[in-house]
Amino acid sequence: MSDESAEPAADPAGISRRGLLGLLGTGAAGLAVGGAAGAGIAIAAGAGRSEARSAATYPFHGAQQAGILTPVQDRLHFAAYDLPANATRDDFVGLLRDWTAAAAEMTQGRPIGEGAIGDLDRPPDDTGEALDLPASGLTITVGLGPSLFDHPEHGDRFGIRARQPALLRPLPRFAGDALDQARSGGDLCVQACADDPQVAVHAIRNLSRIAFGRAPLRWSQLGFGRTSSTSTSQVTARNLLGFKDGTANLKSEDPGTGAAVWVEAGDDPAADWLAGGSYLVARRIRMLVESWDRAQLGEQETIIGRDKGEGAPLSGGTEFTAPDFSEIAANGQPVIAADAHVRLAHPDHNGGAALLRRGYNYVDGNDALGRLDAGLFFIAFQRSPEQFITVQRALASDLLNEYIKHVGSGIWAVPPGIAEGGYLGETLFA
Amino acid sequence: MSDESAEPAADPAGISRRGLLGLLGTGAAGLAVGGAAGAGIAIAAGAGRSEARSAATYPFHGAQQAGILTPVQDRLHFAAYDLPANATRDDFVGLLRDWTAAAAEMTQGRPIGEGAIGDLDRPPDDTGEALDLPASGLTITVGLGPSLFDHPEHGDRFGIRARQPALLRPLPRFAGDALDQARSGGDLCVQACADDPQVAVHAIRNLSRIAFGRAPLRWSQLGFGRTSSTSTSQVTARNLLGFKDGTANLKSEDPGTGAAVWVEAGDDPAADWLAGGSYLVARRIRMLVESWDRAQLGEQETIIGRDKGEGAPLSGGTEFTAPDFSEIAANGQPVIAADAHVRLAHPDHNGGAALLRRGYNYVDGNDALGRLDAGLFFIAFQRSPEQFITVQRALASDLLNEYIKHVGSGIWAVPPGIAEGGYLGETLFA
Repeated sequence: MSDESAEPAADPAGISRRGLLGLLGTGAAGLAVGGAAGAGIAIAAGAGRSEARSAATYPFHGAQQAGILTPVQDRLHFAAYDLPANATRDDFVGLLRDWTAAAAEMTQGRPIGEGAIGDLDRPPDDTGEALDLPASGLTITVGLGPSLFDHPEHGDRFGIRARQPALLRPLPRFAGDALDQARSGGDLCVQACADDPQVAVHAIRNLSRIAFGRAPLRWSQLGFGRTSSTSTSQVTARNLLGFKDGTANLKSEDPGTGAAVWVEAGDDPAADWLAGGSYLVARRIRMLVESWDRAQLGEQETIIGRDKGEGAPLSGGTEFTAPDFSEIAANGQPVIAADAHVRLAHPDHNGGAALLRRGYNYVDGNDALGRLDAGLFFIAFQRSPEQFITVQRALASDLLNEYIKHVGSGIWAVPPGIAEGGYLGETLFA
Repeated sequence: MSDESAEPAADPAGISRRGLLGLLGTGAAGLAVGGAAGAGIAIAAGAGRSEARSAATYPFHGAQQAGILTPVQDRLHFAAYDLPANATRDDFVGLLRDWTAAAAEMTQGRPIGEGAIGDLDRPPDDTGEALDLPASGLTITVGLGPSLFDHPEHGDRFGIRARQPALLRPLPRFAGDALDQARSGGDLCVQACADDPQVAVHAIRNLSRIAFGRAPLRWSQLGFGRTSSTSTSQVTARNLLGFKDGTANLKSEDPGTGAAVWVEAGDDPAADWLAGGSYLVARRIRMLVESWDRAQLGEQETIIGRDKGEGAPLSGGTEFTAPDFSEIAANGQPVIAADAHVRLAHPDHNGGAALLRRGYNYVDGNDALGRLDAGLFFIAFQRSPEQFITVQRALASDLLNEYIKHVGSGIWAVPPGIAEGGYLGETLFA
């Protein structure tokens, strides 16, 4: 049992032994980063990928949860859980406490509890598949669904209905929704993001193990590649339509981002416990890539409203040039079509509503017709669900709707960050 | 349309413009590698991951296909295709030629044909989601299934039955097989491996697009993390049991590896076209991780026959120490149990049969019972299918069988490498 990673210990600089081994081993410009949780620490990423980030470590404790303004990591494992009908308030709080303890270790690149290689006569506290890996920028972000407060069948199991945020309600039905309930909703959600997928999978697998018998997994989703950036230091990535995605996404460096993302005290008198938190909306958006791939390039660009190579608006300039929606072409039509995606989704057309997006490309094999089951797992954080609802309603006439289908959906309130010695969601029970 | 990647060109050193941009951008020790295809070029990888490899480019042309002895890349997209009943020999050869042309570009970090941003009035030749990414070590390896030669319903569609290798037959049924036919078999398979999953997905997506109407996708599988190493320069990775996997795997540096992997002229008089090729066996092995995670560490180690931390055989030493299967414990029992996985799978217990493995961890969401649909997508290359069959039969009494289930399976003959101007599988039709 000579494995170095058996008993990792944090050194004074906040770098775990496992993280340090990672730093020494990569030969790349590995970074371990300290600072305020959720403060959107900018780390230079190269060439659209972030090899240099694999040893990054983000603090778990802080005023806000990490994994929101944090520069979007490359890989995702997202999961939703349901508490059983007979779960008590103590069961619920106990699970949140246990998840907190595990997340505090894993995000720092340490195994859970006594680790993966403790006593021979007990199941290990940690499943072990991340033993040799650095923290890889892991963040674990937990959300609370409306069904915790007011379940259609189980009612107010936890005595928290009076504290339900007025805006934490199941999303309205949107035009074209084709939702699979087995891939939608859930009492709790966990977003695990990391630059190494094995680290993200390890996190969800261990949180699921801890929840065994207490909160069974409802559904889970892997995302193999980020499509959003939350920092100006990150190169814009491409979605499976082949277009750059999230160019106009809120960035942590933008002065208005905090006000668009974080709930403030007074936003909802019944739910001051959510101050410093946010609302997470997830949508599984299937892309009909086989049809898209047979569309002419000109049609593709008209639908999106940007060119495919550079990502510049069709009204001209480069990727980050503001679109000129008023420009008229020689044929008398707007250069950016009236129902182009970029126009309908733009804050200027939605009363300023903007989203902080952390979406990921996914491919889950193929369907029975031999079409790739591929698309975008959309995640957005916002101060109010109305921001998402406004934009999604505006997209009802989106030209892109011919090529996409929303097949999964969920909304959760994301509690504020965790103080040392505290636990996830503690303010709800205070 | 100012995108630099619109018209990439190879420079004299074999580095594409896109690859070069990747090298310049990463800030890491990016490598572009020339040399003989399939020669198992050793590239230093750090900390079990290969950040420094992301700009690696492997030659497409050569005596053997790449993606076999090549150091195992981090990510996988594997796909199987079926040709329709009425496909002709010309249809089949035409598809192989078109795949060859596309693979020759993509593996060098170049888009297909006129690229993703050509004429506005045509669908692009390339879907574009890898436009900004380097080659990322992409290899594309194609195999031919037994059903191409002698289909249970369509017979000898292509006039090649006489050239069917005697050993290219559907695998026998093994103890415990629980195969899903929708995830098994296929006329053709493609293994796309890369250090960036977006690059591997892009490859399969574009080959599927090229095959549209000619060879529909039968099934496909993503693997998020390698569990095998094919080079002594690679750190052993862990599978989802939390154990190091593939320690005793054949490595390209081992003197006997070539003879265990490559078919030689004379191996099968009817199939000399396969000389320089290999046989690929794929198995989707579901791991019952929830049960495994409740097993005591001691039981886990007994089942595997190695310790969990270091990966050393229970008979002592370190990871690469040869297991001593004869060692007896104080209680009179063998230290490495009679039915331990490491004993049953070891070449010493299988007449020397060894496999070159290129397996990957997978998680495909969860099943209806809330259990992670997780496991190992096993891939092995060997000179004769008998090598796999021998080992798999020996595993009938494997203690590990309580925790795993084989749910998908396939076998394909992998033709030799492609000469400049030639095409995949050409020797079969010569």
